Amino acid sequence: MVASQGPEAADESAGPSVASYDDPVYRAAVVDLLGAVGYGEISAFERLTADGRMAPTLEDKVALQGMASAQYLKIRPIVERLAEHGVDPFAVMEPFREAFDSFHAHTAPADWWESLVKAYVGDGLANDFYREIAGFLDDRTKELVLSTLEDTGRSEFVVERVRRGIELEPRIGGRLALWGRRLMGEAFTEAQHVAAEREALAELLGGGRVEGLDLTTVADMFTRITHRHVERMGRLGLEH
Amino acid sequence: MVASQGPEAADESAGPSVASYDDPVYRAAVVDLLGAVGYGEISAFERLTADGRMAPTLEDKVALQGMASAQYLKIRPIVERLAEHGVDPFAVMEPFREAFDSFHAHTAPADWWESLVKAYVGDGLANDFYREIAGFLDDRTKELVLSTLEDTGRSEFVVERVRRGIELEPRIGGRLALWGRRLMGEAFTEAQHVAAEREALAELLGGGRVEGLDLTTVADMFTRITHRHVERMGRLGLEH
Repeated sequence: MVASQGPEAADESAGPSVASYDDPVYRAAVVDLLGAVGYGEISAFERLTADGRMAPTLEDKVALQGMASAQYLKIRPIVERLAEHGVDPFAVMEPFREAFDSFHAHTAPADWWESLVKAYVGDGLANDFYREIAGFLDDRTKELVLSTLEDTGRSEFVVERVRRGIELEPRIGGRLALWGRRLMGEAFTEAQHVAAEREALAELLGGGRVEGLDLTTVADMFTRITHRHVERMGRLGLEH
Repeated sequence: MVASQGPEAADESAGPSVASYDDPVYRAAVVDLLGAVGYGEISAFERLTADGRMAPTLEDKVALQGMASAQYLKIRPIVERLAEHGVDPFAVMEPFREAFDSFHAHTAPADWWESLVKAYVGDGLANDFYREIAGFLDDRTKELVLSTLEDTGRSEFVVERVRRGIELEPRIGGRLALWGRRLMGEAFTEAQHVAAEREALAELLGGGRVEGLDLTTVADMFTRITHRHVERMGRLGLEH
C-alpha cells in the first residue's frame, strides 16, 4: 500500500536529505501536507467559480470557468495518492478546512478586481510555499506537489486584465495595492494557525526531523516568499 | 468563414429535409440555437459549482466539481463554431441570459437534495429538447449539438445519491416529487419566452421553414419530452 523508501533511497546530491515513509512522523507530515494541498485546490476551485459570477463579461466568466476546470484536474492525483497511503483522502483534508475557509471568509473580494488579484496573489503565495517545502520531501511526493503548481494560463490572463484595468482607471491601483498586502497578512496568519495545530507538519518544518530544515531555514523561507510576493505585485503594476 | 452546405448536401434518408446555411433565417436560427446551448452550458457550470457548496461531504463536493469541469469541456466547441459563423460568440449568447437566469432564479434549490434533482431533471429536459431539434438540423450542427449531450457520469451519481437519500429519509420523496413538477413547469415557461422573443428560432420551430416541422410536430415534441421527464422522475424513485 505504502511506497517504501528507506533513507538509502534519498538522493544525497539533491540538497537536504529527506526523511523516509518508515518514519511515522514523516509519513503523517506527508499525509497532512497532501491533505492541505488537496483541500487548497478544492477551495481554489470554489473561489474561482464564485468569483466568475462577478465577471463583467461572459468571456471573462468562461475564462474563469476554464481556470477552475484546469484546477480540478489537479485534485484527482492528490486524492489518489492519499488513498494509496491507506487513508480516507477527504478525512485527512478536513482539518485544513477551517484555515482555508477562514482565509477566504476574511478575504472575500468586494469586486471583480479584488477577485482577480486574489486569484493571482493567493495562488502565487501557495505555490511559493509548496515549492519551498518540496525540496525537503521524498522524490515521489515532491513530484506530485510540484505537478500541482503548473500554471494553467491563469497568470497571463490576470496580469493582462489587471494592468489594463489600472490603465483605464488609475485610482483602483492604490486600493488593490492595499488589498495585496492584506491578502499576504491573512495567508501568513492562517499558515501559522495550521503549523500550530498540526504537530507532524510543524515537526517536519521546525523540529529538525529533516536535516537542513530548522527554524532559521523557515524564517529564511518566509523572507523569500515575501520577496516573491512583492515581485508579483510589481508584475500586476501594483506597489507593495 | 461559413461552411456552405446547399440543400443537395442534405441526407434525404435521415428524416425531414434540413434547410441550408444559404437561407439567412436558417442561419440565424442555427446561431441562435448554438447561442442558447452555449449559455445553457455556462449557466449549468455555474449552477453545479454553486450547488457544490451545499454538498454534505467533501467527496460529494469534489464529485460536483468534476461534473462542472466536464461541462466546461462542452463550452469551448460551441464558442469555436460560433466564431466560425463570423459572429461574436458571447454576444449571441446574451439574449438567452435572461431566460436561463430567470429559470435558475425561480428554481433556487433549498437544499442538497433539491439541487441534485435539479441537476438531473434540468439537464434531462434540456438534452431531450436538443435531441428533438437536432434531427431538423444540418449534419454539422447536429453533430455539435449532440456532442454536448454526452452524459459525463452525472446521471449515475445523482440517481444513486437521491435513491439512497429517500431510503434513509422517505419523507423527502414527496417534497422532491413536487419539486420535479415545478422544475418542468418553469423550464417550459422559459422555453416559451425564448420562442416568443427569438423570431428566427420560432420560425425554424413552427413556421414550416423546415419540412416536417410545424406546430403539431412541436406539440408532439413537448408530449414526448414530458413523457421522458416522468420516466426520469421514476428512475430517481419519485412519482410525477
